[in-house]
Amino acid sequence: MNTPPSTRTGIGTPRLSINRWSCRSTPLQEFLEATAAAGIDAVGLWRQDVAEVGLDALRRRVDDAGLRVSTLCRGGFLTVDGEQERADALEDNRRAIDEAAALGAPTLVLVVGGISREDKDIIGARARVTESIAQLAPYAEQAGVTLSIEPLHPMFAADRAVVSTIDQALDIAEASGSPAAGVVVDTYHVWWDPGLERAIQRAASTGRLFSYQVCDWNLPLAAEPLFSRGYMGDGYIDFPSITRMVAATGYTGDIEVEIFNEDVWATPADDAVQIIAERFEQLVLPHA
Amino acid sequence: MNTPPSTRTGIGTPRLSINRWSCRSTPLQEFLEATAAAGIDAVGLWRQDVAEVGLDALRRRVDDAGLRVSTLCRGGFLTVDGEQERADALEDNRRAIDEAAALGAPTLVLVVGGISREDKDIIGARARVTESIAQLAPYAEQAGVTLSIEPLHPMFAADRAVVSTIDQALDIAEASGSPAAGVVVDTYHVWWDPGLERAIQRAASTGRLFSYQVCDWNLPLAAEPLFSRGYMGDGYIDFPSITRMVAATGYTGDIEVEIFNEDVWATPADDAVQIIAERFEQLVLPHA
Repeated sequence: MNTPPSTRTGIGTPRLSINRWSCRSTPLQEFLEATAAAGIDAVGLWRQDVAEVGLDALRRRVDDAGLRVSTLCRGGFLTVDGEQERADALEDNRRAIDEAAALGAPTLVLVVGGISREDKDIIGARARVTESIAQLAPYAEQAGVTLSIEPLHPMFAADRAVVSTIDQALDIAEASGSPAAGVVVDTYHVWWDPGLERAIQRAASTGRLFSYQVCDWNLPLAAEPLFSRGYMGDGYIDFPSITRMVAATGYTGDIEVEIFNEDVWATPADDAVQIIAERFEQLVLPHA
Repeated sequence: MNTPPSTRTGIGTPRLSINRWSCRSTPLQEFLEATAAAGIDAVGLWRQDVAEVGLDALRRRVDDAGLRVSTLCRGGFLTVDGEQERADALEDNRRAIDEAAALGAPTLVLVVGGISREDKDIIGARARVTESIAQLAPYAEQAGVTLSIEPLHPMFAADRAVVSTIDQALDIAEASGSPAAGVVVDTYHVWWDPGLERAIQRAASTGRLFSYQVCDWNLPLAAEPLFSRGYMGDGYIDFPSITRMVAATGYTGDIEVEIFNEDVWATPADDAVQIIAERFEQLVLPHA
């Protein structure tokens, strides 16, 4: 689908949030203005944005644009070994929780980290993640922020996230003993899961479904597989079906579009935002 | 690890089978001779080999080299829709079963097929696989051949296999009602699975663990992700741990090394076979 964007501004699209990285090459202020001009309520932000302009200034810019922050990305990287490395990782995650709270983001997305080629101990790495999240969850709870463990596609199990399925993320969340630990369901990462529907139901019924993110699975994979995320409709994912699974649980939160894609990044933000809104209205919103 | 191959021929490595595609660019006869010269008992073959020299001639060559065939690759592609397409796919799979029987291969590996970008119906595609395997299994049973459903890594769920986990393959195998349907455990495809140990136990305890295949998960992914398979030890997979999971079930069958890798293909077959045997003896055999 190469539908050219129609001329539409300020129409507004309920439920839609656009993640900052969908327009990564657009300057932050321009991204916020393009999103607000399209009548969109919320954006997903990154800690890089905090680092770029400062926490207070970022909150002010978001407020001034009339936007909300749906998620802050990202904490995690909790598979590190060694006492000092783990203490540093926990401290960094506490800072991320504070930043999410200051931005009014209800949830912090966690990419839990991978394994080293020397170590190869995925089971040990998972145990460290479980332990670290149990340590962070009470801090998040106090800050009024939830922790969204993100199962990443299994092709990232070695280098980015030893948590690959919703069920695995929920096991870790439940082991924390805190209601602040849960999961983000990102279609790119979990669409292939044969247990998807049941896992989404479990997430919601245990009060741990904190975010629903959408983008397509494009083939052939990009040289950097992270960047194979596409506009909804360009790849292989059945958005109506998965969105109905989410809606059936009673989920009424934001639905965030997070696309990492060199072609999308080369598109002017106004156009990219319009394409995103149109695809969202075609393929997601009617089923949400 | 870039250990140069030592000079070793005819030593013999118990349990080791080498898949034809590990030496894809070597002529068939040369591959068989290199394998036999290294004292290896078995090879995994492909239907392309049958097509190249004919079924009887292939069997004769294997026998003359003093080898056995551990697996025949591959049947499958059962997600096709349309009455004629499905009938053709079933007929082609029956021919593949006959070929496996004629080669003395105990099992036929099945890559079940993907979905189309137009259709996107992964749930419907899986249902067609389940139905087709139930139709093929009695035929395989009569031929004395088992069907090894191969869960492929989820990064191939769109274009190659809508079966991504051992548990999913076992659900399909059990639904056939036949003892001839089961699973091949290939480390490259399943190493990331958080339920791996329990799934391997289930496969064995239900009599459906028909093959164990090994190769490593190399990063960065090759441009064609299928070709990121590496020599054991070059990537991120913990072969001792996974092999112990398999051994704990009482599995005593062949362990087949199947590497798709441009660098390995550029290596003379004698050298590649020796590196494979050495890595196998270091990382797999002591735990098997």
